[in-house]
This record gives sequence, C-alpha cells and structure tokens, in this order.
Amino acid sequence: MLTYDLSRAQGSLYEYLYQCIKKDIRQGVLAAGEQLPSKRNFARNLGISTITVETAYDQLISEGYLYTVPKKGYFVADISEIFKIKPLAKTAAIPRPQPQKEYEFDLSNHHVSPENFPFSIWAKLMRETISEKKEELMAGSPGGGILFLREAIAAHLHSFRGMEADPGQIIVGAGTEYLYSILIQLFGREKRYCVENPGYQKIAQIYRSNDADCRFAAMDGQGITVDGLKKAQAEIVHISPTHHFPTGITMPVSRRYELLAWANEQEGRYIIEDDYDSEFRLNGRPIPPMQSIDIREKVVYVNTFSKSLAPTIRISYMVLPPHLAERFYEKLSFYSCTVSNFEQYTLAQFIKKGYFEKHINRMRLFYARQRKEVLECIKKSPLSSFCNMIEKDSGLHFLLCFQTELCGKELKKRFQEKKIHFASLADYDQAPDCDDPPVFILNYSNIDLEKLAAALEKISLCLHE
Amino acid sequence: MLTYDLSRAQGSLYEYLYQCIKKDIRQGVLAAGEQLPSKRNFARNLGISTITVETAYDQLISEGYLYTVPKKGYFVADISEIFKIKPLAKTAAIPRPQPQKEYEFDLSNHHVSPENFPFSIWAKLMRETISEKKEELMAGSPGGGILFLREAIAAHLHSFRGMEADPGQIIVGAGTEYLYSILIQLFGREKRYCVENPGYQKIAQIYRSNDADCRFAAMDGQGITVDGLKKAQAEIVHISPTHHFPTGITMPVSRRYELLAWANEQEGRYIIEDDYDSEFRLNGRPIPPMQSIDIREKVVYVNTFSKSLAPTIRISYMVLPPHLAERFYEKLSFYSCTVSNFEQYTLAQFIKKGYFEKHINRMRLFYARQRKEVLECIKKSPLSSFCNMIEKDSGLHFLLCFQTELCGKELKKRFQEKKIHFASLADYDQAPDCDDPPVFILNYSNIDLEKLAAALEKISLCLHE
Repeated sequence: MLTYDLSRAQGSLYEYLYQCIKKDIRQGVLAAGEQLPSKRNFARNLGISTITVETAYDQLISEGYLYTVPKKGYFVADISEIFKIKPLAKTAAIPRPQPQKEYEFDLSNHHVSPENFPFSIWAKLMRETISEKKEELMAGSPGGGILFLREAIAAHLHSFRGMEADPGQIIVGAGTEYLYSILIQLFGREKRYCVENPGYQKIAQIYRSNDADCRFAAMDGQGITVDGLKKAQAEIVHISPTHHFPTGITMPVSRRYELLAWANEQEGRYIIEDDYDSEFRLNGRPIPPMQSIDIREKVVYVNTFSKSLAPTIRISYMVLPPHLAERFYEKLSFYSCTVSNFEQYTLAQFIKKGYFEKHINRMRLFYARQRKEVLECIKKSPLSSFCNMIEKDSGLHFLLCFQTELCGKELKKRFQEKKIHFASLADYDQAPDCDDPPVFILNYSNIDLEKLAAALEKISLCLHE
Repeated sequence: MLTYDLSRAQGSLYEYLYQCIKKDIRQGVLAAGEQLPSKRNFARNLGISTITVETAYDQLISEGYLYTVPKKGYFVADISEIFKIKPLAKTAAIPRPQPQKEYEFDLSNHHVSPENFPFSIWAKLMRETISEKKEELMAGSPGGGILFLREAIAAHLHSFRGMEADPGQIIVGAGTEYLYSILIQLFGREKRYCVENPGYQKIAQIYRSNDADCRFAAMDGQGITVDGLKKAQAEIVHISPTHHFPTGITMPVSRRYELLAWANEQEGRYIIEDDYDSEFRLNGRPIPPMQSIDIREKVVYVNTFSKSLAPTIRISYMVLPPHLAERFYEKLSFYSCTVSNFEQYTLAQFIKKGYFEKHINRMRLFYARQRKEVLECIKKSPLSSFCNMIEKDSGLHFLLCFQTELCGKELKKRFQEKKIHFASLADYDQAPDCDDPPVFILNYSNIDLEKLAAALEKISLCLHE
C-alpha cells in the first residue's frame, strides 16, 4: 500500500500528506486512474486519524488531483497534459523598477514640494470622513463619481471659472490620462484626433496607445490653427487654450471662436479643452474657459487636481456637454469610478469647506514669489546678457531663449554632462523636420532657489564652451 | 468718447469696466478695428485712475478682445466668428444621477457592510502615512505602483497563495476594470478575446467598449472548455478558475493543464486568471492559482482588494509574466499609476503590519457564520422542500435551484413585484438561445439576516402563485 514517512512533516500532518500525494501525481508516480487506499486503511497504515486523510483527500479533490467514484473510492485524475509542457529555455529577466536619473539640478521638476501640500488639513478631513461617513464610504460610487464631490466641483467651477456646470455633467476619474481613454470610448476610436505641436507628448502617446488615429496640427502665435486642423482632417481636437504647454500661449478669443466655428461646421467634431493649470494665472483674472462661450455643446472641459493640489493624489474630472453626458450614462456608466470613495469625500470636504480656495491663493502667492526670485537670480547671473525670457504671465513655467549659434540638442547634451536637467522646446516638438532653437523650459514650481545661481553659472559656461 | 456709468459697479471698478467693454465687443457695439480711448483720456473722462483702465485693458488683451499697436494705442480685435454661431435649438436634458432602485430585500448585495471594514486601523495607518511619509507622498509613483506596495503584495502572494512573484512583475491600478484596458494595450486590440459563458457580464462589456473582439466560450462542469476556445478562435482567454462566478465551479488541475497546453500551442495566446475572491474559500486551503503552475509565461494573474477589503477602495493589481512585464515597461510605463500615493502607502502598511491577514481571517469566520445562518434559515423556511443548493465551499455566494415549472425570467418578474432583488443565472448568460432554468444566485456577504426569513417566505409564495 501507498505509504509516506510522516515523521518528516513540519507543518500539519494533513498538509504534508496532501503535498506528498500531489507531488506523486504531478510526477507520474501515481498514474491516472490508479485507486488510492480507502481513508480508513490509509489512516491505519500511516498511524494517523481518518480525519487527517479525509482532509488531505478533500483538498486534492477540490483541486482536481483526485476524483471519487461512489461506493468504489478515490482515484487519481488524468493530468497527463502536464508532461507535454516544457519550461521555457530562456526566461526574460524580471525588469527592475528603474532608479531615477541623478541630476545635480533639475529645472524641469514639477512635483509639489511637501511643504506646499496641506497635509494637516488633509489628515483632519480624512479622519473626519472616516469617522462620520462609514456608510457612504462603503456604498458604491456612481461611474461619474459621488454626487457630493461633483457638487463641490460644480460650485468651485462656478465661483472660480465662471462656468455653468451641472453636477450631472461632471465625470470624476483617476487622472486625466484615464479620462482620455473614457473620451475615446465616448467619441469612438475611429475618429481622427488631433493635438497641438509642440505639446505635451503624453497626450498623443495615450491616444495612440489606445489605437486612435492621432495627428498633429501646427500652432501660430495664437495657438492651434484651423488651417492645421483642416490639413490634419481632424474631428476631435485636444487643446489647452488657457495656457499652452510649453509655449505659454493663451489663445485669444477670436481664435477660440474660429475653432468653435470649425467644430460647428460638421456633426461629430468636438474640442477637448484641457485646463490643467488655469488656477495659476499670476496676474489678473483667470482667463474664461472655452466651455463658457460654447453654445452648441462642442466643448469637453477637462481639469485636474494634479497642479492645484498634487499629482500623486490622482483626481481629475471633466465637464461633458449635456448630450455627451447622456451618452456617457447610456454607454459607459457600467464602469466603476476609479477614485476611492475615501478620497472623493475628503476632497469634496476640502473644496466645500473653503480650504481649496485658500490653498490656491496661498500657492499663487508662493509661485509669484518663486517666479520673482528666479527672474532676479537670472538677472544677476552671467547668463542675463545671453538669454531672453518668453512668458505670458501665467502657469508655472516660462521659456528661456538663449542667444547662441548652438542648437537645442547640442545645448541639452552639454547641460546633461553637467548633470543639469533642463527640457528644451524641441523635446515637445513632434515634427522631426523642425528646426531646433536653443529655447528651454524653466519650470519654477518646485525649483531649488539655493542652488539656482550655481546652476545658471554652469548653464552660462555651456553656452561658451 | 466711449463712456460707461461706473456708479452701477458692484465689484471692483476695473472688473466692471472690463465687463462693459467685453460686452460691447461681444455684441458688436464696438466694431473690429475700432480704436479705444487712450488710458489717460479714458480715465479722466470716467473720473477714475489710469491704473484702473490699464488693468481692464490688460485683461482684455490677455483674453484677446483688444490688441495694441505700438505708439498708436488700443484696438478692438476681430471676433466676427461669434456672430456666425447660433445656439442649439434644443439642448439635451442634463442627466440626473439615477437614484438606486428601492428593494425591500436584496439577495444580490455584495457591498461590504460598514461593520466589516477596519476603519479605525485604516484611519490610524492613513494618519501615520501622512505624518511620516510626506516626501514619498509627493514623489511621483512609477506606472506600476510604488515599490513599497508591490513588495507587500509580493510577500502576501507568497505566503497566502504560494506564488512566486517579483515586485517588478506586479502592476497596481485603480480597479481590475482599469487593468483590463491596460492588458488590451499590452496584448493588442486586434487579438480575439474570449470570456466564460455564463460569466460576469462587465468583463465582456469592457473588452467591447475598448473595441476588442470579445467572444464567449461555453463551460462544462469543469469550467471553460478548450473546444469552446477553439470554436471561438480565441487568442486571449479571461477566466476565474479558482471560483467561477456565478456557477461557483473550481477548475480542476487537469483542465488547467489543458488550457495551458492550448496557450502553449501558439505564440501570442495568453490566459488572464481573474482570482477575484480567492481569499474566501471557507473550507480547506486556498486553491493554488494557475499562475503557480505556468512554466511558459502564459498566465497573467489579476486580483483585487474589492472583495478582500472593500470595492470602494479601488485598488487592484496584476502579476505579469517576465516578458510581458518587460513589454509593459517598454510600451506603457509612460502612464501614471491610477492609485493615489496616500492609499498605496496606507495599504502597503496594512499588509506589511499583518492587518490584512487578520482581516481576511476575521472575514472568513464572519462569512462562514453568515453562510451557516443563511443555510439554516433556508432549511427552516417553507422554501426548503422546493429548492436545492448548489455550492462549492468557496466564495461569497451559492446557487439556489428552485423546483418549479416556471422559467427564471418569470420567477424574477414575480420577485421584483415583491420588491426582492435576486439575480438569476440567466442574468449572467450571454447566449440568447439558452434555456432559462429557475436558478438564482444568493450572495450572502452582506445579507440582512433579520429580514431573510420573511423574504424566503415571499419567495416561496412566488413559486406557488
């Protein structure tokens, strides 16, 4: 009779017995169809209880290694397919998460510094949410997000951006990247999408990774051109009219109306308005969004808390025109909202209780101060006579145009050799035949002011090496 | 000269002036090309300071309503496109978020009851995370999730599921629904996907909404069949072998090897193993996942914290075989992780400090007790002689098969009339020509035991009306 040396068992006896039998079946020692001893006999033979054998047999039955025939007993299942499968000759190395590149100075850093996140208020609101909203935290969130947060966002958009948006039009998601994929499902993957060139590369990357046809349209000093859209045969255009990245252009109202007229020319044309950093116009009132002058339901407004709060919080939203909101509920409301209820409620309280407005005001002051100090530092540096600043009063970055014969690529190489991370305009240009001006993007939102003078000196050296 | 009655200003003078001029431009009162008064003259005329006029002009320039000509002055921009756009004759009604249907009794409720979520521990860990990890919370998370969480998941999978998974193979995302869309991008949208019939409808819905060809393959008593896969010409099959929903079938090891052999037959074939509720096998050891017997990198393992913690927390993960992990980093690592850093760190601590294991053990006891009470309640009810229970020891639901001539549809209608929510097997069947047995799915994870007896009595009445 089948026997095993149970004195070698380290865990429970049943588990050891289960492992032994399983191993023998997997190695073919016990053949398909072979009958196993009855529980009682096997137990007596091994000197253990019948229950132990039964538990082991039950587990093997659950996993399908054994089967029972009523009144006959336990038999080995046929797993002969196992012997046909050979391991791979060579397995790929398991990728290690890449360590971040080491820079001595980073002029492209756009993270929020820990000093600038309202941790204590956030912690307090999270604690209150957890203690007061247990029921709501466990209740399913509608696909577009919990109503409480959507109401808070609608009220914020009204007071801060002068927008009329009903909470029913607002769809909350885990980052704008996710929302783009929802928009592709809403509009249709067969549409021709179009983005600005130059522009933030990730947007085109996301459309293309989702197998949507994504083209580029050229910009002039007022933003993307209708001519460019026509050349690209665009149907859906994705733009950031308030503050284009990286050029900083604010699209004037005349161009906005041209784009709206273009969208109105044909059914199925839409404008995705990406308003990613509109909160940080440092002088004057915020620029009104296109959504507020759209009277034919052609504009989808997209915004995020990545710039206004922190990118690592992963909450974004969009405002769909009514007929698209209807389409969303019809076609896509089966999706669960991708943001945790815990954070939806916490953020809603953060907005409703006025903390968000205070935070934005505080950050505007901080960024304005930061910008002023950066400009002063540039003025004092040896670089000052070899660069012009191109900026439009808004956002958290500006362009530096160097007076040099060197192209952007060569300059960037020199900066890298000095361990300076500094993105050039060409980094955001999708047309390979473009010229490569020595224009660089200085992001001052999280710049290290103490090291800036030294970095500028190094940059100045790079120009004249 | 242009003039406005500034005595009617309610906010700041500059804002009122800005609004007046803007309105006149938008209505064509001020025509394109028309010159505006100089700042000084206008200010003197209106009896206000030059600064006020300048601020209003600056804002109008930023928005593009005015432009300047050096040494000449301020001119009205051409926004004549505005007059070509007519508002929509009829706008769609803004959809209201649907109120939940009112049931008196819900036998399909799968939410986690607030009593069963570890709120106080979660609150404590969240507080600790916020106070101790400020730097990390603001640092960008890699596309696959923060390493700290992936390590915790890898260790959990090792001890709880006997799986070997390197943190580099683990990809964290905001829900399995999101991860499916990542898998489609990883495998290619042109592949033929295949899901189980019957099965959880949402899975096919997601593939189809992402424009992937998704087919159904029939099941027998051991799960999806290779024959069904061949008929469907499947390339990627999405299954839940540990515990199929709704039938409760655990796929035996022989069928698992058949499927692996099928996958190995051809390059590009893969198995997505959806292990959604493996933590809650109530008797015996957990069933080993297919991932652990896959020696040719054919299985993608997917799991979620929706069942084991709460669906509203929105954290799921997958374990990619090494070569697919490599492909992920190559093609898709530009995506930001969709889960907030705050919750990634909190969950990592929850797992690392042993709370997750304790929680699962506690919930297994709770569910076992719950199940026992539900079974006893059925036994005592008038229904007991008219139904059989089909269940496989695992998961949070079982099937009730009613002895009646009525079809599932008719029964369901009768239940609904009595305000009882009870899903039938046919609700999960995708083949319209199927028969419709009177089999219903009883989800006991969050069932209201106090009302159950009354509900069973009503159900019994429905059978005999």
